Amino acid sequence: LTKTGIVKRVIIIGDDDVAYRIMQEVIALGATGYTHQTVHGKGSHGFRPTHGEPANAKIEIIAAPEIAYRILEHIDTRYCNKYAMIVFIDDVEVLRPEKFGAAPIDQP
Amino acid sequence: LTKTGIVKRVIIIGDDDVAYRIMQEVIALGATGYTHQTVHGKGSHGFRPTHGEPANAKIEIIAAPEIAYRILEHIDTRYCNKYAMIVFIDDVEVLRPEKFGAAPIDQP
Amino acid sequence: LTKTGIVKRVIIIGDDDVAYRIMQEVIALGATGYTHQTVHGKGSHGFRPTHGEPANAKIEIIAAPEIAYRILEHIDTRYCNKYAMIVFIDDVEVLRPEKFGAAPIDQP
Repeated sequence: LTKTGIVKRVIIIGDDDVAYRIMQEVIALGATGYTHQTVHGKGSHGFRPTHGEPANAKIEIIAAPEIAYRILEHIDTRYCNKYAMIVFIDDVEVLRPEKFGAAPIDQP
Repeated sequence: LTKTGIVKRVIIIGDDDVAYRIMQEVIALGATGYTHQTVHGKGSHGFRPTHGEPANAKIEIIAAPEIAYRILEHIDTRYCNKYAMIVFIDDVEVLRPEKFGAAPIDQP
Repeated sequence: LTKTGIVKRVIIIGDDDVAYRIMQEVIALGATGYTHQTVHGKGSHGFRPTHGEPANAKIEIIAAPEIAYRILEHIDTRYCNKYAMIVFIDDVEVLRPEKFGAAPIDQP
């Protein structure tokens, strides 16, 4: 029987220049991994990237709630005042939840 | 203390040709921004893109519920009858919620 | 009036080599489509891709709950023991829900 568990998905969208630093910090804060993609977009700083500008990065992390909120607080304190970033979080049901420190529950 | 608020995430997947028009309309409907990525995929119109065809676009928007549902209705009325599109919406907890017109709440 | 319905979003992140097989299997299991993107990332197997390695794939599927959990079980049984994969699922509200076998409900 397939078992899943509830964990958090954190998504960070922001300047690709700081993304590389953030990816290292996310691991240091206890995440087991992340995915990284380059995205285009328009936000409060206008359309990105324009010629010669860095692109935007989208970083996704699956983690236990405690680690997820630690990441949120870190980004809020260190980056949100200086950079145009969008950071959000929601719940997902993950396979092999024990990898993320979550209790496995049976599927219906 | 880190504060978040509940907003909507709207995801629009469809023909990259109309994506550029949709991105402008999304801003006109009150969104503060969006991200745009090119994706491959298979749907009711078969695998996209094949040779000489446009790719598919994935547009993501974070917005207050009122604006999010306005976007949903716009896409439904103007595009869903003519184009193969998938449009969906869910709730996320966002940092700096006041940027999206949502009330900030304290994190646990 | 715009109508939506509740369906599942399944996200599969894993080795791009098996992604092509998984995409075919997902359709065989009853999904009407998927999107596919290449992503970079760090996980329990280290940073991917490094030189000469395959990239990681991110596959997203919108489907009725029954089909979504069938996909989850399939990936769990066939791939999770052999490959570094992250698979998760959540609820989304989709336009034109009848395409996915979900009942349409009126928007507020």
